[in-house]
Amino acid sequence: MINFETSPAEYRHWKLEFEGAVAKLEMSVREEETLGQGYKLKLNSYDLGVDIELADAVQRLRFEHPEIKIVIITSLKPRIFCAGANIYMLAASSHAHKVNFCKFTNETRCAIEDASRHSGQRYIAALNGTASGGGYELAMACEEIYLIDDGYAAVALPEVPLLGVLPGTGGLTRLVDKRGVRRDRADLFTTLAEGLKSHRAKEWGLIDDYFPSSKFQAAVAAHAHELITANPEPQPELGIKLNPLQVEASGAGREYVHVSLRIDREKRYADLTVRGPATGQPETPEKIQLLGDAYWPLRAYRELDDALLHLRFNEPEIGLVCLRTEGPIENVLAVDRTLAAHRDHWLINEVRRHLARVLRRLDLTAKSFFAIIEPGSCFAGNLLELALAADRTYMLNDPQRPVEVALSSMNGGVLPMSNGLMRLESRFLSDREKVDKILKTATFLDTAAADEAGLITIAPDGLDWDDEIRMAIEERTSLSPDALTGMEASLRFAGPETIDTKIFGRLSAWQNWIFQRPNAVGEHGALTSYGKPSQPKFDYRRT
Amino acid sequence: MINFETSPAEYRHWKLEFEGAVAKLEMSVREEETLGQGYKLKLNSYDLGVDIELADAVQRLRFEHPEIKIVIITSLKPRIFCAGANIYMLAASSHAHKVNFCKFTNETRCAIEDASRHSGQRYIAALNGTASGGGYELAMACEEIYLIDDGYAAVALPEVPLLGVLPGTGGLTRLVDKRGVRRDRADLFTTLAEGLKSHRAKEWGLIDDYFPSSKFQAAVAAHAHELITANPEPQPELGIKLNPLQVEASGAGREYVHVSLRIDREKRYADLTVRGPATGQPETPEKIQLLGDAYWPLRAYRELDDALLHLRFNEPEIGLVCLRTEGPIENVLAVDRTLAAHRDHWLINEVRRHLARVLRRLDLTAKSFFAIIEPGSCFAGNLLELALAADRTYMLNDPQRPVEVALSSMNGGVLPMSNGLMRLESRFLSDREKVDKILKTATFLDTAAADEAGLITIAPDGLDWDDEIRMAIEERTSLSPDALTGMEASLRFAGPETIDTKIFGRLSAWQNWIFQRPNAVGEHGALTSYGKPSQPKFDYRRT
Repeated sequence: MINFETSPAEYRHWKLEFEGAVAKLEMSVREEETLGQGYKLKLNSYDLGVDIELADAVQRLRFEHPEIKIVIITSLKPRIFCAGANIYMLAASSHAHKVNFCKFTNETRCAIEDASRHSGQRYIAALNGTASGGGYELAMACEEIYLIDDGYAAVALPEVPLLGVLPGTGGLTRLVDKRGVRRDRADLFTTLAEGLKSHRAKEWGLIDDYFPSSKFQAAVAAHAHELITANPEPQPELGIKLNPLQVEASGAGREYVHVSLRIDREKRYADLTVRGPATGQPETPEKIQLLGDAYWPLRAYRELDDALLHLRFNEPEIGLVCLRTEGPIENVLAVDRTLAAHRDHWLINEVRRHLARVLRRLDLTAKSFFAIIEPGSCFAGNLLELALAADRTYMLNDPQRPVEVALSSMNGGVLPMSNGLMRLESRFLSDREKVDKILKTATFLDTAAADEAGLITIAPDGLDWDDEIRMAIEERTSLSPDALTGMEASLRFAGPETIDTKIFGRLSAWQNWIFQRPNAVGEHGALTSYGKPSQPKFDYRRT
Repeated sequence: MINFETSPAEYRHWKLEFEGAVAKLEMSVREEETLGQGYKLKLNSYDLGVDIELADAVQRLRFEHPEIKIVIITSLKPRIFCAGANIYMLAASSHAHKVNFCKFTNETRCAIEDASRHSGQRYIAALNGTASGGGYELAMACEEIYLIDDGYAAVALPEVPLLGVLPGTGGLTRLVDKRGVRRDRADLFTTLAEGLKSHRAKEWGLIDDYFPSSKFQAAVAAHAHELITANPEPQPELGIKLNPLQVEASGAGREYVHVSLRIDREKRYADLTVRGPATGQPETPEKIQLLGDAYWPLRAYRELDDALLHLRFNEPEIGLVCLRTEGPIENVLAVDRTLAAHRDHWLINEVRRHLARVLRRLDLTAKSFFAIIEPGSCFAGNLLELALAADRTYMLNDPQRPVEVALSSMNGGVLPMSNGLMRLESRFLSDREKVDKILKTATFLDTAAADEAGLITIAPDGLDWDDEIRMAIEERTSLSPDALTGMEASLRFAGPETIDTKIFGRLSAWQNWIFQRPNAVGEHGALTSYGKPSQPKFDYRRT
């Protein structure tokens, strides 16, 4: 069972230090403290355990340290920044773990970019030694990259020449799409196992600058100082503490304060229920700040996030998740009004961005999702996004037991998908006017109105309801899990593409394919042969 | 050895009929006349042989029949339009053949859309019976879809529920991105093996309309007539004949009139040389029309197209292709001036579009390409696109043996990549001004100028040249072919995404992955089990 919760006091691989508006996030991976068996984390290489700490640090910096404007990611080890994902860990992992591991690390790097963009916390990579593979990909997730010029240090993406796989954490996409490296240079760079150093790395746009060893730390610090003084911000607020989640875990699922996950292992499906807020949620930033992480949207979505990660890594056989909600619709809408009214307050901004990230985690989860809308549910505003994120939505159509959904301003673009669109836009891709009409005219919709508006998929009547849901679950969980993963990934992300969707949709698909191929994982594959005296043997047929 | 040349007189599976401005392309697949062994093409299902004829028909309609404004695709078999790619053929094919087959059929469907968009030949699918899987995907490549309402006929994408794989010819992408079908309806539709009929199919946007059996042919014909009379065009020109290519094939390669392909099997690489035009190419549309398919750009690029297909299907172990050109630069530029001056003439338009399609075929070929620029070469204008399409470009830097490349208006957007950008834009994605500057100021560039402009990758000097090229070839062909395929697909298509790049980049990658998985092709996989009494058995772990 993999646990996704941690805190700085528990970090084994990272050190987090603060000085004024600058945080230093220092990597010092302990070789022996691995999440799995059979490998050592040499040269600041990482496994999922290392990345769970990094994801936690990025999240805490936003909520607990709003005073921080610059985050410098560097290493405490001499001559090496980070050697990337540990190869022996990858070679020993199941295909499913490799894919889920890459997805999580990709989400962490997108969270770094999200913080740079939306929280005023600009990430700088200070490469005090070689950044190779995932190490350089981590650097590319930062807004700026500085490399030490010590005659040795290089940046490199050696996956293709050394391992016969692709850089798994967005490297190829960020190289050409984010950093604008010319494609033929990118080709040369990604086939050059030893990478490139100072002058050439800068000329090709792989790094922003380099400094000699004696001046490296001072030059990066001076640059951080410059950035801060160039953009003086109002005196920052105090952060709020993110306490450990309260969860009761059992074989039957996980019970959080606002979220329940109930597993039906035999039928390979789960019910994931989010309970709406009790009345009495605070309505001013000051009171919300006092309440801290117990504020409903923050706690409920942290719980939802944890449940999704649990489903991905610890419940691989669960193929379908039924999304449910419980509670008064009005309470959810009241929270949404507060989140809209105070959107410029740093904490409210962070809460909103957090909701958006968790919903994107849902979009990117390789399970089928059905939203089940019954009396007593509160698919409203931010929670309506669960239904819009689902692959299908079932809503009871029974005059005896009426049920409603509701819209709020949170459905109007505050919680974008990875493709940059609101979920309503992705839904009505060919009819943008419909989106505007729904957002302008509707708040509460009963089943007939929701059906008419195109917000739900099927509205079985009271007599058919139980059978219809049961049969839909049985049918879905009988299908090929691989075909469903590919189908859902294709249908969920219609419309425009962004760096994020390219990484999750295109790069990951290629990576998944290559990870399966005998040329990588066969007896004589490159990944299998890594670190052994024998050379890999390839089937050279090109496809 | 698969042969990609055919002509209407040789068609075994299609009938092409003309009536005024309307062509009918009628599918009547002969079950026994398969390209491979061990399967029958029942129910208008297809293999590569059927699609080679379709691609030929689409191409000939443009060059040989410019008078045609509407192409109606229909079937000559009762109750069935087309059942899609033959499942037994897929199950019996190697992974490489499946992937290459899907790519070719995708290119054919993109060619249909290209003809609708750019040649004024609008494709209409007249589904006189069920269109299933690839049959419905073929319909979606048309601009309009009409379905017979006979109580039986349906459109369906049954790949996920029946076969455990994805629709392989753009179905998922066109469903949501081209036809704008709501994603939850698309989800339901693609898990419904039997598909949807008349009323529901129209309501969901899967078809444009339906007509009862007794009125079907007349209704489609009337609609075609309406479209033609609504857009009366000037009296059309006569077409030109596309004659068979002249090619001498041997174990060492293929010799065409303007193209040479020389294979080095031991080193797993090929030299692909395009010879520029001899002097005396005609400069007016009238003279070009008289010359017909012997006009240099048409013949040279038809030969190049054939060579690329040959490399893909018949030379799977060749991993690297060195692109070379021979001839006077001025002759290529003279042709480009003619192609620019008469761009509004229908034949010149077709020649330009053809060049663009062949170059896109090159972009999408899963081989590494190095352009080799030496004295005597003519990488100018349209042929410079070969160098811009290459993964790397090597240009000799030797004052004793000077060499030049040259730009023309053909480099300024006439020959777009699948992502909609000119190759110069893809190259300088972060610096659009550089593109304008190069296009405005430069015609001829020697090695130093080409290097300075960023048009080449490496400029070895005369002493190093031979060794550098030899080592680059050896190094490239030693790498994992799968990793190279994924890497090149990622680096070649930076920037924006289109339906085409989604199909080739994202959908194909998912398809490649799923085609490899035991859940599809293992002993108990869905593809393996198709048509057998045993049910597939899945490993239900989701990744």
